[in-house]
Amino acid sequence: MMDVKYKDLIAFHGHSCPGLAIGYRMTTAALSFFPGKRSEDEELVAIVENNACGVDALQVLSGCTFGKGNLIFKDYGKHVYTLYERKSKKGVRVVFNFGGIPENLRQDRAQFIDWLLTVPEKEIIQSREVAIDAPAPARIFKSVTCEFCGEEAMETRIRKVAGKTACIPCAEKQLGI
Amino acid sequence: MMDVKYKDLIAFHGHSCPGLAIGYRMTTAALSFFPGKRSEDEELVAIVENNACGVDALQVLSGCTFGKGNLIFKDYGKHVYTLYERKSKKGVRVVFNFGGIPENLRQDRAQFIDWLLTVPEKEIIQSREVAIDAPAPARIFKSVTCEFCGEEAMETRIRKVAGKTACIPCAEKQLGI
Repeated sequence: MMDVKYKDLIAFHGHSCPGLAIGYRMTTAALSFFPGKRSEDEELVAIVENNACGVDALQVLSGCTFGKGNLIFKDYGKHVYTLYERKSKKGVRVVFNFGGIPENLRQDRAQFIDWLLTVPEKEIIQSREVAIDAPAPARIFKSVTCEFCGEEAMETRIRKVAGKTACIPCAEKQLGI
Repeated sequence: MMDVKYKDLIAFHGHSCPGLAIGYRMTTAALSFFPGKRSEDEELVAIVENNACGVDALQVLSGCTFGKGNLIFKDYGKHVYTLYERKSKKGVRVVFNFGGIPENLRQDRAQFIDWLLTVPEKEIIQSREVAIDAPAPARIFKSVTCEFCGEEAMETRIRKVAGKTACIPCAEKQLGI
């Protein structure tokens, strides 16, 4: 975690932008409660309340990634991340405060990014410990072959259509939905 | 894209595993249709039909990331990725074939990963061009302050409860759901 720099976030995200800088500040604020940790497996879990650019910063910095099952998306459109550490059962909630941004800054994108990366944390971010239930760990299920397309799908996503085993896209096609 | 190695995928995902190796092979197969490209912005869009480990390989290799809006998740539990290039309007569908894996290989995890990384592509992957509609680009909306918690939420996620502006968590709390 300690070796990850903003340029590494740009390399992953593909470009620099205010959203990425916001995610950088929010994630480093959250991780300051869990020193030295980047999640190799599911030690940390992140619950993100938006799917904006900043979540890419969170993925790289925290190791809570879409493919690992420890990135939970709640589609609330809010700049809020909650990080949870399974071992300590500690939760931290971080909120970005748009009201802290001087209005004239937004006009110059490069200057705005610089400002976001360097402004004192307390001016743009609120963070506090919270009590939350442990999120369910990611699970792996066996695959079953769809009798319509012949492709495999996870058994929990298999449907029955006219007595046949169907993956969701084939089931919807058969049912005309 | 060309400089990304399997070790870079491990660095992002946090560990090596068969799922990451599968994602590596699926993504490189898909990207072979779009030479030299890693999506800096939304030039490429990926539609993934699972949220398993392999999607982390896809994020790093293709630049289709959760935070950039060009990673579309369809929860079908299928090892299928479809990549779409906006400029050429070309789509490519890649399917992983679990039937191609010798049964005894799965018992030795390290050996299984090595095999997945080196087996000829045609034994485990089917890829073909497909015609698909262009996915909608990511959009940014303004934020509105929730009158209950005082936090901001994207205007498309704002609800009205008892005549007041509410974010989704506050709306659900007010309504007891």
